[in-house]
Amino acid sequence: MPRPRQHRAEVTRQAILDGAAVAFDRSGFGGTSLSDVVKHAGVTKGALYFHFPSKEALARTLMAEQLRVADLVPTGPETPSPGITGPEASSRGTTGADTTSPNPTGPGLQTVIDLTHHMAHGLRSDTRIRAGIRLVIEFGSFTDPDPSPYEGWIDICIKCLTPAQDRGDLHRSLDVHALSTYLVGAFTGIQVTSHVRTGRTDLHDRVVDLWNLTLPAIVPADRLAQFDPAGSPECRAART
Amino acid sequence: MPRPRQHRAEVTRQAILDGAAVAFDRSGFGGTSLSDVVKHAGVTKGALYFHFPSKEALARTLMAEQLRVADLVPTGPETPSPGITGPEASSRGTTGADTTSPNPTGPGLQTVIDLTHHMAHGLRSDTRIRAGIRLVIEFGSFTDPDPSPYEGWIDICIKCLTPAQDRGDLHRSLDVHALSTYLVGAFTGIQVTSHVRTGRTDLHDRVVDLWNLTLPAIVPADRLAQFDPAGSPECRAART
Repeated sequence: MPRPRQHRAEVTRQAILDGAAVAFDRSGFGGTSLSDVVKHAGVTKGALYFHFPSKEALARTLMAEQLRVADLVPTGPETPSPGITGPEASSRGTTGADTTSPNPTGPGLQTVIDLTHHMAHGLRSDTRIRAGIRLVIEFGSFTDPDPSPYEGWIDICIKCLTPAQDRGDLHRSLDVHALSTYLVGAFTGIQVTSHVRTGRTDLHDRVVDLWNLTLPAIVPADRLAQFDPAGSPECRAART
Repeated sequence: MPRPRQHRAEVTRQAILDGAAVAFDRSGFGGTSLSDVVKHAGVTKGALYFHFPSKEALARTLMAEQLRVADLVPTGPETPSPGITGPEASSRGTTGADTTSPNPTGPGLQTVIDLTHHMAHGLRSDTRIRAGIRLVIEFGSFTDPDPSPYEGWIDICIKCLTPAQDRGDLHRSLDVHALSTYLVGAFTGIQVTSHVRTGRTDLHDRVVDLWNLTLPAIVPADRLAQFDPAGSPECRAART
């Protein structure tokens, strides 16, 4: 059990990240000052500097954090993730007491479909996910290009799609690395477009389109009906 | 024929846009000052203000200009585009004397495939296209959200894909608007990802993946062989 002082420090650290997320989500990296973060976080500048040496350190933390959406689904058969009830819980770095029942067949194609919907839900409902993605696209793609968030998602897809291909859910001829790279790129653009055009209100529908328009090229015809482009029942339940 | 003074003004205007493109491509909207533009353009601040009242006006002009890549292919059967030999020519607002031979079957699915490769080529070879896209994604998606560049590309796709569906090249059940929205979103993300991961060296390969992974869902099986995911012979010739 953490000692009270450690606990207080963690509460402050989370408040700073919450405040930074509000500021970055609203104004981007260039438009956010550390004074904005302090104001939104309700902490002193001293406390801020104790936890994060710079605005860039705050941005890098939020950019890395969005990968934790992957904890929502078991992507590794040997280390089932602890149960997390939603992207808010995930982004706070806290885990619930229950454990998710391990996926009986291990991670696979439906896992990746579910991940895209969990990410879409996180973008719609969680300021920290939203700030992380804005930073990845603005700051991490142009201001100071950093492929690691993209590579992180590509690796997660590969971990799910390689066993899927081994068990025949994906065509043998597919290059799983190229498919994973494609899915990460396409999702990135789909959510930007949905954000600009509809304030992300149509994002789940656009993600369903992504899968409806991709599955026929990658899944043998006699297995197509096994996959739900709108997400598994558990995935759909988690976002309502 | 333009009078000399008009001609000089247009030369200055193009020099300003070239200089602005270098600055925006390098430093983004937030990181670019009008002094940077003046320096890169080799013009006076007075000349700059004569043509563009603000940095935002410069950005909007470059953001609108990337849509002119569509002039490279005949997207409207009734108004065949004049021949343009490459994205540099397109972005300069100049047109050659030759006329492109009209597409015998009118615009269609291969037109859209070719457009994605022309855009990829423009992103790799033309600073003004590159600056326009950086502005669309950074400035036009987050700083000051503006769906019009996305809607512009969606409309161009719809103009090509509606006749394609009418002649049976696309499944009758497809929603052409949703398909067009998907293609614009997916391309947007694919080129961002390619930029961050490889400096866009793999962009044409990633665009080929987009089509290989989408065509089986949208084209009747007996017509698939009619479409080349790498672009038509004319399109491939134009980018070498």
